[in-house]
Amino acid sequence: MIRPIGIFDSGIGGLTVARATCDLLPNESILYYGDTAHLPYGDKSPELIRRYSTRIAKHLVTSGCKAIVIACNSASSNALDEIKSVVGSSIPVIDMVHPVVEAVSSDNSCGRVGLIGTRATISSGLYSRVFQNTGNSKAELLSRATPLLASAIEEGFFNDTIPKAVLEAYLEDGYFDSVDSIILGCTHYPLVTDKLRKLLPRSVKIIDSPYIVATTLKARLMELGIEAGPNSDLIHQVTNRFEVSDLTENFKIGAQSFFGSGIDLEEVVLV
Amino acid sequence: MIRPIGIFDSGIGGLTVARATCDLLPNESILYYGDTAHLPYGDKSPELIRRYSTRIAKHLVTSGCKAIVIACNSASSNALDEIKSVVGSSIPVIDMVHPVVEAVSSDNSCGRVGLIGTRATISSGLYSRVFQNTGNSKAELLSRATPLLASAIEEGFFNDTIPKAVLEAYLEDGYFDSVDSIILGCTHYPLVTDKLRKLLPRSVKIIDSPYIVATTLKARLMELGIEAGPNSDLIHQVTNRFEVSDLTENFKIGAQSFFGSGIDLEEVVLV
Repeated sequence: MIRPIGIFDSGIGGLTVARATCDLLPNESILYYGDTAHLPYGDKSPELIRRYSTRIAKHLVTSGCKAIVIACNSASSNALDEIKSVVGSSIPVIDMVHPVVEAVSSDNSCGRVGLIGTRATISSGLYSRVFQNTGNSKAELLSRATPLLASAIEEGFFNDTIPKAVLEAYLEDGYFDSVDSIILGCTHYPLVTDKLRKLLPRSVKIIDSPYIVATTLKARLMELGIEAGPNSDLIHQVTNRFEVSDLTENFKIGAQSFFGSGIDLEEVVLV
Repeated sequence: MIRPIGIFDSGIGGLTVARATCDLLPNESILYYGDTAHLPYGDKSPELIRRYSTRIAKHLVTSGCKAIVIACNSASSNALDEIKSVVGSSIPVIDMVHPVVEAVSSDNSCGRVGLIGTRATISSGLYSRVFQNTGNSKAELLSRATPLLASAIEEGFFNDTIPKAVLEAYLEDGYFDSVDSIILGCTHYPLVTDKLRKLLPRSVKIIDSPYIVATTLKARLMELGIEAGPNSDLIHQVTNRFEVSDLTENFKIGAQSFFGSGIDLEEVVLV
């Protein structure tokens, strides 16, 4: 049996990363964990985010995952070192921040970069520090916390007036009007890309974080020689599992929006 | 020393009930517990709400509280029996649902009553069952879950366009246009009463749940002869404590909006 890719998030937003991973790595199996009993992480303290995240990382390792993707910007920004520490050096850990900053700053047209995310993501300052470390002196990061946006999307408001009103409230001062590109620093946000597009100048490039992270994962698996090829195992069948710490009807419905049809959630409580 | 009134909520919304309690019972001390590490309860399963709520109730009893107020509609609707069971019969437990339904149905003008609340509150059906048990055959309850509203208020959006947009999204079909009164079935909602007022016909009466619950608490303390009078203890000083399970800057700021100035939160983690 092929060992799965472990992907986790505070809730179901990380399914956008699971979707990109399935699309880009169709021969891999996924074990997804959404910590719906404790979502959202975005308003929680760094200590609490670390406690919840490391517990999940341990679970994914114990379940035999060969790589871990932290499909949550709040956890990536506040708990990366702690997660790496419990996972150990033999299993690669891919976060949301480093791949995206590397992709953006290696783009020659990169200039002023906007970032929106949860309060926990923005206040950690990790995106800024990683940007500075790239040595790209042209790059300038303008960041702003947009905490209600993830809740609105999680509640199913992505096809109506609510995300527009929420985005307008956060962006009405034109803070991002001068940026060249904008990073969606929360795995929920890709669902409202079209609303954001209408509120920003047409020239602003919106960065597709889930796809970039899945691309980085693929490169890392190939580098380590542990990717599942179409013929890597004759008895291999792709098996995706989607676990949540609290299962409600609403999450079942929401999961379809983030991942697409054919997703079955099951409740697995970690202690 | 006078034993405090224990008041708890999933977060800081229950401070509207703490405020009403302080106003109505100025000689009582309060021990408030906001479970900010696990908020919001409104999207969680009944089982999880029970687990979190009973843990807090035990903490309040162990801390010497002489009465418990469940200042959270999601907990009142899903965990009342379990909370009463851990508190025991010697300490009164006041929930959000029964006092409000009794107050509304004893009003002779009570006819069609609207109810808005979290998903957990509405889907529990407790408000409907309590209404039916009052035997008021004239009363008819129309309820609707408005889950994003508490998050918007918790994020500080109560003085701008967001709560209006959120309320409009939930009420645009005129579902509540024929009601005589509306119950704000979430302790966050009193902060947007003025926005709701503008979206409903002028004749609709908006029910002030925190004040009703504080009034019921006062009556119950007097009935049991355990209320603190101005002269009940010569060395008595009113001492309010406000504990949260996760302390962030945002909660500190939010607490002022819900309770008023002069509130200090401290972090107390329950295990």
